[in-house]
Amino acid sequence: MIAPSVLSQLESILGPDHVRTDEQTRTTYGTDALKRGAPADVVVFPGNTEDVAAVVRVCAAHRVPIVPRGAGSGYTGGSVPIHGGVVVALDRMNRILEIDEANLVAVVEPNVITGDLQAAVEKVGLFYPPDPASLGQSALGGNVAENAGGPRAFKYGTTKQYVLGLEAVLPTGEVIETGGKTVKNVVGYDLTHLLVGSEGTLAIITRIILRLVPKPPVQATLRASFTDVDGAVRAVSNIIAARVVPAALELVDGESLTAVARHLRGRSLAPEGTGALLLLEVDGVPPAVEEEASRVEQACRAAGATEVARAHTDAERDELWSVRRELSFSLRTITALKFNHDVVVPKGRIPQLFDLVARLRSEYRLRIPLFGHAGDGNIHVNIMVDPSDRDQLERARAAQRELFEGVVALEGSISGEHGIGVSKAPFLSIELSPEEIALMKRVKAAFDPLGIMNPGKIFPDP
Amino acid sequence: MIAPSVLSQLESILGPDHVRTDEQTRTTYGTDALKRGAPADVVVFPGNTEDVAAVVRVCAAHRVPIVPRGAGSGYTGGSVPIHGGVVVALDRMNRILEIDEANLVAVVEPNVITGDLQAAVEKVGLFYPPDPASLGQSALGGNVAENAGGPRAFKYGTTKQYVLGLEAVLPTGEVIETGGKTVKNVVGYDLTHLLVGSEGTLAIITRIILRLVPKPPVQATLRASFTDVDGAVRAVSNIIAARVVPAALELVDGESLTAVARHLRGRSLAPEGTGALLLLEVDGVPPAVEEEASRVEQACRAAGATEVARAHTDAERDELWSVRRELSFSLRTITALKFNHDVVVPKGRIPQLFDLVARLRSEYRLRIPLFGHAGDGNIHVNIMVDPSDRDQLERARAAQRELFEGVVALEGSISGEHGIGVSKAPFLSIELSPEEIALMKRVKAAFDPLGIMNPGKIFPDP
Repeated sequence: MIAPSVLSQLESILGPDHVRTDEQTRTTYGTDALKRGAPADVVVFPGNTEDVAAVVRVCAAHRVPIVPRGAGSGYTGGSVPIHGGVVVALDRMNRILEIDEANLVAVVEPNVITGDLQAAVEKVGLFYPPDPASLGQSALGGNVAENAGGPRAFKYGTTKQYVLGLEAVLPTGEVIETGGKTVKNVVGYDLTHLLVGSEGTLAIITRIILRLVPKPPVQATLRASFTDVDGAVRAVSNIIAARVVPAALELVDGESLTAVARHLRGRSLAPEGTGALLLLEVDGVPPAVEEEASRVEQACRAAGATEVARAHTDAERDELWSVRRELSFSLRTITALKFNHDVVVPKGRIPQLFDLVARLRSEYRLRIPLFGHAGDGNIHVNIMVDPSDRDQLERARAAQRELFEGVVALEGSISGEHGIGVSKAPFLSIELSPEEIALMKRVKAAFDPLGIMNPGKIFPDP
Repeated sequence: MIAPSVLSQLESILGPDHVRTDEQTRTTYGTDALKRGAPADVVVFPGNTEDVAAVVRVCAAHRVPIVPRGAGSGYTGGSVPIHGGVVVALDRMNRILEIDEANLVAVVEPNVITGDLQAAVEKVGLFYPPDPASLGQSALGGNVAENAGGPRAFKYGTTKQYVLGLEAVLPTGEVIETGGKTVKNVVGYDLTHLLVGSEGTLAIITRIILRLVPKPPVQATLRASFTDVDGAVRAVSNIIAARVVPAALELVDGESLTAVARHLRGRSLAPEGTGALLLLEVDGVPPAVEEEASRVEQACRAAGATEVARAHTDAERDELWSVRRELSFSLRTITALKFNHDVVVPKGRIPQLFDLVARLRSEYRLRIPLFGHAGDGNIHVNIMVDPSDRDQLERARAAQRELFEGVVALEGSISGEHGIGVSKAPFLSIELSPEEIALMKRVKAAFDPLGIMNPGKIFPDP
């Protein structure tokens, strides 16, 4: 519960229209794509940085928890107000402030939708590469807070590689600027990249300076089919050995394929007997793309591909990509609930990861379709659960923990894209040592001495 | 002075051969490329991570300053023991531990020389892009600590973009591992990139995991001559507008050219009347390189280039690059001392930076040759000083401060490559606000509660 005096202070800063305590708003802004919610005490809608700073100062004075929120499309509960308090919804701060062609830079407010920025910069021949699957809904502020990835990360890197500078409001109410419009800047500590991926626990991001690159003029899209995952993984190794860096190198396993085929009502997506698909894209200038596409095709055939299809029109390209795009939805035809994990291993160890999951499938009698970014070793492991089946739920929980332990044993990481948030906080100590966690908590305290900024995230509550 | 009991503890950890207090060692390891030294009390040579941790624990117990040191090639005094104490010289930790071709990763100890790693990975068709001018002397640990740049940064990014993970010893003696062999990892705060560029003030880096990329098969090297800097800057804008990203885009002004010509004993480096040179390189697969080279050439001609020369052999390529390589040495023919600054502005503002320097030249009657990485807006401003001329020294100091203020006013940064160290610490507050500096000091304290790790660097001594 928020004290009435706090509420009236918030209203005097933002105006009553931008301070909401009605049930519907509190519930809507109390959940995200994790689908596990906690209603906010109050949801505020600041219009600019000064608003945000004033709100934070009120919260700091009264030690009220603050939860920054972008588009609410995160998978790990990063924007869920699990300890109540004030949700700072950045909906109104959604302008592209500048596309600076001479400096290859864009300046945006946090709630610009990722896909909208991409469309805007592509109009002038530029390119913002990070492409999380949620790019039609997710906001750039959230992409920065979570360090969003996507298929293009193998060639282009994740969001981190594109953030040059930030404006942010500290939990103490001060406004800081980090980095700037230049790629090179070594003045003091790199707070920019400390804030990237900090899941809204260190500050509220209010402005973002992003690096752009020239838009690659053409791309070639290929789909290679294999009888099993081993063949697909061999093809990935062959491609890397051929020194080609595709813009996308997506792997889809047989179980996921079956789900998509059912979802798309039996439309044929691959030859009969396909146990794994690779979706491949190379981009660049035309002659280079031709040459690389043929090296990719050879690499796939040498690994035993039963078919290599290539798109020759935009419509064909869309058709090839449709498998990948429909995956998340399709899995809902299996069960209503999934433990949606985004583990990552060194790419050479993908076969061991698949072996591990095969063992978990049989040992715990679970359906676990796999797909993901093979070039990065970043595989989405979907443990499908019928929430009404308590025994299955228990088995899924046990399998999940074994998955995380196995991934760390393979020198991997329990999260490559989604972050820790609430849902992975109990597993943090599988990957990080007590000394590392203690150090991170001291860094957190350096930013947030009162512990009011997005409490309960990353670090498990005591 | 180090207490004899501390010394004997260090000797019992490392053996007496690896603990040196002789005058020559203390002096040699008491200076770096800044040429402003302070003798260490003792220099230790640990052989592995456990050695480093044990040394740090002794220092922490006795509150003795610790100064980590790589190859000592830094320009800002980062490894100078200005408060005495123990210099931890990492000379013996110089092995390439692994070149993992399947995962496009190298694992190295901190004192591997940058150029040695490059040569080793190029043998297997891979590429480590960061290329500081000191790559023949500088160590990778120092490159990481300073976030080294170089000509290729415009296309390939700085050292930061290649560091995937670190092992480091905290000032409290604990060993942490950050990141790993995967490009994607969003588990907890990004301590890896906080350590990159932290100038040895947060921890001692003991192992580095670096990302590699395929080696570009060919490159085209061009030299474009202009009558003045404006023409060269127009060419840079044209190249960016043509959506080409050269692997190098180096600018050399007329004053620097004159110095090189004198240094190389009048060997002709450019047509008569050249006031600015651009050195350009594009790389990639052959057909793409041909196409981009011709777009670069057109962009230069459209900007009024008086000549565009292209290398057709390796020897010709070396000849074109020789101007750039000999620059630092050549400037010594002007005066013995230079204030060697590495300011950076958004690249579209390079003309304003040149205007600023032109004003400083005439106002303070100084010679200030310029050269640098035009694609990044990162320009080396060399304020030449005769140290015996006190009045000139004063004028140089005043010009230096005005330069920094002007660069920040242009939304730039006072250091793009060299870091702050000792020499730029007095100017930190020109660029960072009191709140930002206070936050950075709290971050420092989170790592180093006793304040013993490389004291007096980055933040001015009170």
